[in-house]
Amino acid sequence: MKAILVVADGMADRPLKELNRKTPLEAAKKPSLDWVAESGICGIIDPIAPGVPPGSDAANLALLGYDATKVYSGRGALEALGSGMDLLPEDVAFRCNFATVDDNLMVVDRRAGRIETDDASQLTKNIEAYLLKETLDVQATFKNTVQHRAILRLRGPVLSIMVSDSDPQKVCKRVLKASPLDDTPEAKKTADIVNKLTQSFHEILRKHPVNVEREKKGLLPANIVLCRGAGKLPEVTPIPIRYGIRAAAISAMPLIRGVCKVAGMRLINVPRATGTYETNVIAKADAAIRAIQSHDLVFVHVKGTDVTSHDHEAQKKIKMIEKIDDMVGHLVKNVDLDENVIVVTADHTTSVVTGEHEGDPVPVAITGPGVRTDDVKEFCERTCAKGGLGRIRGMDLMPIIMNLLGKTKKFGA
Amino acid sequence: MKAILVVADGMADRPLKELNRKTPLEAAKKPSLDWVAESGICGIIDPIAPGVPPGSDAANLALLGYDATKVYSGRGALEALGSGMDLLPEDVAFRCNFATVDDNLMVVDRRAGRIETDDASQLTKNIEAYLLKETLDVQATFKNTVQHRAILRLRGPVLSIMVSDSDPQKVCKRVLKASPLDDTPEAKKTADIVNKLTQSFHEILRKHPVNVEREKKGLLPANIVLCRGAGKLPEVTPIPIRYGIRAAAISAMPLIRGVCKVAGMRLINVPRATGTYETNVIAKADAAIRAIQSHDLVFVHVKGTDVTSHDHEAQKKIKMIEKIDDMVGHLVKNVDLDENVIVVTADHTTSVVTGEHEGDPVPVAITGPGVRTDDVKEFCERTCAKGGLGRIRGMDLMPIIMNLLGKTKKFGA
Repeated sequence: MKAILVVADGMADRPLKELNRKTPLEAAKKPSLDWVAESGICGIIDPIAPGVPPGSDAANLALLGYDATKVYSGRGALEALGSGMDLLPEDVAFRCNFATVDDNLMVVDRRAGRIETDDASQLTKNIEAYLLKETLDVQATFKNTVQHRAILRLRGPVLSIMVSDSDPQKVCKRVLKASPLDDTPEAKKTADIVNKLTQSFHEILRKHPVNVEREKKGLLPANIVLCRGAGKLPEVTPIPIRYGIRAAAISAMPLIRGVCKVAGMRLINVPRATGTYETNVIAKADAAIRAIQSHDLVFVHVKGTDVTSHDHEAQKKIKMIEKIDDMVGHLVKNVDLDENVIVVTADHTTSVVTGEHEGDPVPVAITGPGVRTDDVKEFCERTCAKGGLGRIRGMDLMPIIMNLLGKTKKFGA
Repeated sequence: MKAILVVADGMADRPLKELNRKTPLEAAKKPSLDWVAESGICGIIDPIAPGVPPGSDAANLALLGYDATKVYSGRGALEALGSGMDLLPEDVAFRCNFATVDDNLMVVDRRAGRIETDDASQLTKNIEAYLLKETLDVQATFKNTVQHRAILRLRGPVLSIMVSDSDPQKVCKRVLKASPLDDTPEAKKTADIVNKLTQSFHEILRKHPVNVEREKKGLLPANIVLCRGAGKLPEVTPIPIRYGIRAAAISAMPLIRGVCKVAGMRLINVPRATGTYETNVIAKADAAIRAIQSHDLVFVHVKGTDVTSHDHEAQKKIKMIEKIDDMVGHLVKNVDLDENVIVVTADHTTSVVTGEHEGDPVPVAITGPGVRTDDVKEFCERTCAKGGLGRIRGMDLMPIIMNLLGKTKKFGA
């Protein structure tokens, strides 16, 4: 027995006035999701705990079977890992933005006019050259990824994730001093390094030819690097070791890829899966169908539903749900349902109204041989609340799936 | 108010193809179990946690109100206690088998041809004589129980349960060396003792007249003792102390009897209760009816449903459920329902298909004065999932029962 776990980012929602008090999931046409619900067992999941809005990193750690309240250790390391940067357990990593500041270090644009990746790479070369010569007592590594996004990794004796961000997260605010968040010398040292590097990078960037050129063209100069989300690798037992299985993951999002890497899953790249509304869901489904031939668990994460929620676009969210339904339909038609368990859920609720992650539970449906079916016929937030699984925690889902696969160990004798 | 708690071992199951997608419980005629459900409140219980298959020892510890994930400390001690061997808190005990090995210590039969208890007792006499003279720095005690089964108890300074089994659990495998499972000197010492005793017992047994005689008759010699399941007594507050009640237990299984002893319950022997499919359930019910006169809680454990599941016998499991229904019917007719709470549940799911304990929840029904009844009319896995208790943990059940009896203390003031 094998399992495909489909997680739609922020798909769950609250009833909306504009949808006549329906949620986008309730308003969408989703015959395949409904089939999974009708043929299987349903329930609702608190990703972390009732009423607690989860970050995507914490929520997906939970859905992969980990107690996020114990193992979560910051976003930076997960993002770094998902961006292809290797990390040792002691490393501290930050998510960074190339940004634009004025002469008073006031933030003008947090993304330096969404600078092109090529320009950011040119700037990064000089930062790298500086870091090679710099004699900090830790080893700092900087890598730009897409557009304004970048990663800073610190490696060396006694660092800490207990440091605040230099990124004020808003324009018209001054760049912040990173500060220690506890009384340890490790936190103070890490904050000092971030502040020193922020200043040094600013010196390098402000007069950089790429920025001079950008200003000539009327573009915003990328004259500072803002850091946020200090993180270390969470200490977890990888899924293949914990359950003795082969596991693969399909996601376009660096953060989610990082979570899956930490969980020891093989990352599968799908060229046309983009992590946006335009993603090719059928390409994702095909990749999952291929992957399940040689893996016991395939995790498929789709981002688009979260993006449309953050953008307050109810109709677009409905369309994205209908795309995901196509994807699930393609999966259901192309895997042997006597030999595979199909699980569909969301990693958290994202409200189209607030545009934020919310603490409401998410629906889940599990279909497959041996499952105790229930009366639920539609895959929605409110219908699934009446299902046979009742209300469970995010971290309960993986043991339930693994038990259906015969991969859990007995507790006791 | 008093309570009778009926636990049917492994009664819960998954939907079966051969039963037209019903579980054995759903397929059985069980008017009395259904009456308990209809007149009471129902729910589902995760004995340990969602998806986690529980051993019988851990599951019953949980149903008696203990956090098995914290107090469980191996099967050997519970089995020893249930077999009538006394234990001190520091003792380490093992479940043992008389077995047959060839000259290379390869296991030929794990039960020495299911040796008769008389023969095993003869062999045990020489092992006891050896242990009386042996000058190990711990005190080792060996006792045979039924047929090939036996117990080894070690008592002395600094022993550990962190030792692996010498029993390979399969034929055509060599007897294993017990190994320490952690880096402590206690674990190493305990493993060394097990290995030394295994060798000494083998020397005693291989030339023993009983075995010479057995071989002449063409029977397998019981020429080795295999050890498994190192355990210490779990540290728990006995039920009579915790709740201020008198508690009794009826079970034919040494392991369950051990759990009940640890919980401080009085063990009641029922001659015709055998722990098998053939057990006399009415004799058990009568014993419970007598016991409830002088106790506040009577725990009745029935093994047969688990045996038939392990043997993949769906029809026999249904018949066993119907016997248990007769037992519950006899209870219901013969106790004053204005003064007694009746609780029925299972300790875990055992699948007729896999023949293994599984991690699915088990149904529970509670009837009695003051209970908030619900709409559930049948005592089945899927009907009870819609009940008023919702989904609870095994360790939650005892406080709920004790609260109905007015025996719980207020938390806070």
